[in-house]
Amino acid sequence: MAQNVYDNPDFFSGYSKLPRQVLGLDGAPEWPAIEAMLPGLVGKDVADLGCGFGWASRWLREHGAASVVGYDLSENMIARAKADTAGTGIEYHLADLDVLELPEARFDLVYSALTFHYVEDFDRLARTIHRGLRHDGDLVFTIEHPIFMAARHPHWISDEDGRKTWPVNGYSIEGERRTDWFTKGVVKYHRTLATTLNSLIQVGFTLSEIKEFAPSQDQIVALPDLAEELERPMMLLLSFHKAS
Amino acid sequence: MAQNVYDNPDFFSGYSKLPRQVLGLDGAPEWPAIEAMLPGLVGKDVADLGCGFGWASRWLREHGAASVVGYDLSENMIARAKADTAGTGIEYHLADLDVLELPEARFDLVYSALTFHYVEDFDRLARTIHRGLRHDGDLVFTIEHPIFMAARHPHWISDEDGRKTWPVNGYSIEGERRTDWFTKGVVKYHRTLATTLNSLIQVGFTLSEIKEFAPSQDQIVALPDLAEELERPMMLLLSFHKAS
Repeated sequence: MAQNVYDNPDFFSGYSKLPRQVLGLDGAPEWPAIEAMLPGLVGKDVADLGCGFGWASRWLREHGAASVVGYDLSENMIARAKADTAGTGIEYHLADLDVLELPEARFDLVYSALTFHYVEDFDRLARTIHRGLRHDGDLVFTIEHPIFMAARHPHWISDEDGRKTWPVNGYSIEGERRTDWFTKGVVKYHRTLATTLNSLIQVGFTLSEIKEFAPSQDQIVALPDLAEELERPMMLLLSFHKAS
Repeated sequence: MAQNVYDNPDFFSGYSKLPRQVLGLDGAPEWPAIEAMLPGLVGKDVADLGCGFGWASRWLREHGAASVVGYDLSENMIARAKADTAGTGIEYHLADLDVLELPEARFDLVYSALTFHYVEDFDRLARTIHRGLRHDGDLVFTIEHPIFMAARHPHWISDEDGRKTWPVNGYSIEGERRTDWFTKGVVKYHRTLATTLNSLIQVGFTLSEIKEFAPSQDQIVALPDLAEELERPMMLLLSFHKAS
């Protein structure tokens, strides 16, 4: 059973004010890079794992998906999704990805944003997703980059020139990481990049594309604080294919 | 044209005393992990890109390869390989991987250890290797991990608990990195992990397996200094397949 920090009132209050929650996909600088990785959507049945407020679920439906089913662990999230981003062909369900079951060959695309690092048993989830996809289906997801997650004290430091620098330690020691983010002791699970890729390859997926999100020069001009993302990647974007 | 630091006398003198040069594969802690990634060798034609003293070339030939062709930029290396690790079915050639051409469909396996980070134009080399492999062939190689290579000052620091920590900055800024290693200004080319994988996927390879080398507990007991390799990966091990 995953920790459900999203139904903690302190957490939810802070989290709900993030630009990406207030503005939706326009508040997520990595969204253009994700959009470029999505397969054609017309007529597709899509699952959105960790759908949050449903911003992506609605976008996917509006851009051609025949149906979207959003799953989230948090009652707060699902309630907000049903209130704000509902519509014909969109369903929202309460679900813990650590125990989720999907119907066999039910979806053409599984999408997930910044959720899988909360999942303890990723091998199980990889099998569940592979089974739930039809042949020729795709899995497109983002997670926190393991470079960002690994260290005991994950915060900016300076190198001897005063340059913003990110500390890495414990990279190969996988498992629980507790961080303070809107509330104390948010639990995430660190896996090496190799573990994430191999888990998906071993259940039968083929890696299509990988991005370690870095802002474009245009994005940095518009939002100069994004420049620090060039120093170390915070997000990993992955696209996998299930062979036909 | 790649920098040829291996024919610099100061460099070559220091480099030749490394355990992995004196002891061969037994001096390379990542070797068991690489060996586990190799396909069956019996009857295979193999290229060893950046063969150095030829330790791996000879091992591959002795473990079933029908032929091994080792390529290296350094006259010193090729001379030592011809003197120390020659044999029937093994050839050594002087070659710069930045301009190397391989005969079409000449090899079943391309192997390379800790060499591709010296190559400036990796897309070109990826095409060359793909063309030089037969259908159903494999590419198995190791490079310095981009986590290890990225920073302006790549050396151990301490976090606030005194823990060994590796600095990362400039990760998304690819290109030349100059380091001092036996001599001043050794030139390497930093590429993100995503760039390395995507370059190979785009020319037609499928990722089979990825390892970010970490020592086993047995290895740490035998050689306690290796424990620091758990803090950040120094080497990336990759296996790709060319579809039949």
